[in-house]
Amino acid sequence: VARVRALGHPLCAGIDPHPERIPPLFARGSMEPDDPETVPAVEAFCLAVLDHLTGRVAVVKPQIALFEALGWRGFQALERVLDAARERELLVVLDAKRGDIASTAEGYARAYLGAGAALAVDAITLNPWLGLDSLDPFLGLARAEGRGVFVVTRSSNPGARDFQDLDAGGRPVHERVAEALAPAAAGLAAPQSGWSSLGVVVGATSPDHARRLRAILPRSLFLVPGYGAQGAGAAEAVAGFVPGPGGRLEGGIVNASRSILFPTDADTDDVARWDDAVEAALDRAIDELSGAVAGGAGA
Amino acid sequence: VARVRALGHPLCAGIDPHPERIPPLFARGSMEPDDPETVPAVEAFCLAVLDHLTGRVAVVKPQIALFEALGWRGFQALERVLDAARERELLVVLDAKRGDIASTAEGYARAYLGAGAALAVDAITLNPWLGLDSLDPFLGLARAEGRGVFVVTRSSNPGARDFQDLDAGGRPVHERVAEALAPAAAGLAAPQSGWSSLGVVVGATSPDHARRLRAILPRSLFLVPGYGAQGAGAAEAVAGFVPGPGGRLEGGIVNASRSILFPTDADTDDVARWDDAVEAALDRAIDELSGAVAGGAGA
Repeated sequence: VARVRALGHPLCAGIDPHPERIPPLFARGSMEPDDPETVPAVEAFCLAVLDHLTGRVAVVKPQIALFEALGWRGFQALERVLDAARERELLVVLDAKRGDIASTAEGYARAYLGAGAALAVDAITLNPWLGLDSLDPFLGLARAEGRGVFVVTRSSNPGARDFQDLDAGGRPVHERVAEALAPAAAGLAAPQSGWSSLGVVVGATSPDHARRLRAILPRSLFLVPGYGAQGAGAAEAVAGFVPGPGGRLEGGIVNASRSILFPTDADTDDVARWDDAVEAALDRAIDELSGAVAGGAGA
Repeated sequence: VARVRALGHPLCAGIDPHPERIPPLFARGSMEPDDPETVPAVEAFCLAVLDHLTGRVAVVKPQIALFEALGWRGFQALERVLDAARERELLVVLDAKRGDIASTAEGYARAYLGAGAALAVDAITLNPWLGLDSLDPFLGLARAEGRGVFVVTRSSNPGARDFQDLDAGGRPVHERVAEALAPAAAGLAAPQSGWSSLGVVVGATSPDHARRLRAILPRSLFLVPGYGAQGAGAAEAVAGFVPGPGGRLEGGIVNASRSILFPTDADTDDVARWDDAVEAALDRAIDELSGAVAGGAGA
């Protein structure tokens, strides 16, 4: 929250290194997932992107699936990308959407939120389908280690309607999830900023849902996917935000992945052109979101 | 299905190598997750367990979280455990409970069900919370590559009640999930056995739910956790099964993890004693489940 306030915008950069989209500047070998050459190419691309992000965004969000798809070498690359983010003083939300029964959840929680874990991150995304007991080990470590979680409550994809939006007693299931999370979220609110280390994922593609979820979870940070490539604008992305100190809207981070990592004019082997394209995409997203939170057009 | 019929029982052995439970016979170093010595110990333990399982069960179910918690070296160990299972002609269901938006799901699907992937398995468990579009890439590969999926529909943990059992229009949400899966499950039914490569996870701890889910998904194999250490008996575990050729109940696999991997008298550094303890635990589970499917006491 402090870093977002200092920067004046809530942009979070998603690190989703789809191998087939990585520009010729970084590509090596076939760029197929099972080609060992793909891993150093993905890693070099991620590090170059992190250089552009340093000092300009508060948070980055690596998508673990894209590293996992490269096998154990991909995990090794993720470890180095996390180290690089830490060196650059970027906070990391690992997009893992994990969710399992308690004894298994303990293992995941220690791996990602435990003190000294190789893949330790500042926060992780979780899937609530298995219930509150599947979240508990993460909440315990979030409190003990000063980390955070974002529970996928209302995602940004079309399939979010299938089960998250089912009517359960006059309210969609995703609101029932938010209600169930509310006591723990209140218990994890920080005395200083007022914001909780139990946040939720709420897609930019459904601003009405975001406003209702804000009423249920007044102290939870929203991690907002769906802005940019997935079609939602900056005003929709901050629909669940509320006025903070100075009147600027706050209460979450807005993720952009493809629009920053792979702008249309960045598919090049010219480093200067690539730098310019990524920088321009970053400027555009920061301008839009700065405007949206300054305009006060949110909740 | 053919292997389960030949063996006469539906036991699936869960490979959940919790480091702190691994007996002194295999332990090395501190057995903390961040100690590199832990990985070879976990791997040796898993391979020794696979030796006991060879020819006695049709399927093993490694829990990816326990490998993932060991970092990239854990993934490397998992790769070798999967190779070892293939060599021993054991089918593998990877318990990963993945679920993400379509572009990310593509990456996961290729990593685990794709032809030639290092971590390729026969089937994977999936989390349906993000909707049908999050499952599609897996279903496409299941059809193209002759693999399978098990969608977590009603889990075995207490938290299953929190959201899976919410009333959504007179039926619990988990039945709505099953109804949404039904067309795809029917489309993926094999001409020969009649069973579908779209299965569901249905906990042994709620046999009534299993019977209703069987009515909704007549051709889906059930992956049944919760038998043994989690408290459900063999008769409850096969509640959703139906009579197959010869009258024996069939229609899924029943997982036991802790009761086979860590029987009470296996916490030893004596190899003969450990062998006997694991063999006895395996005999017991096989006897119970053989009896339950022969007795015809299911759905």
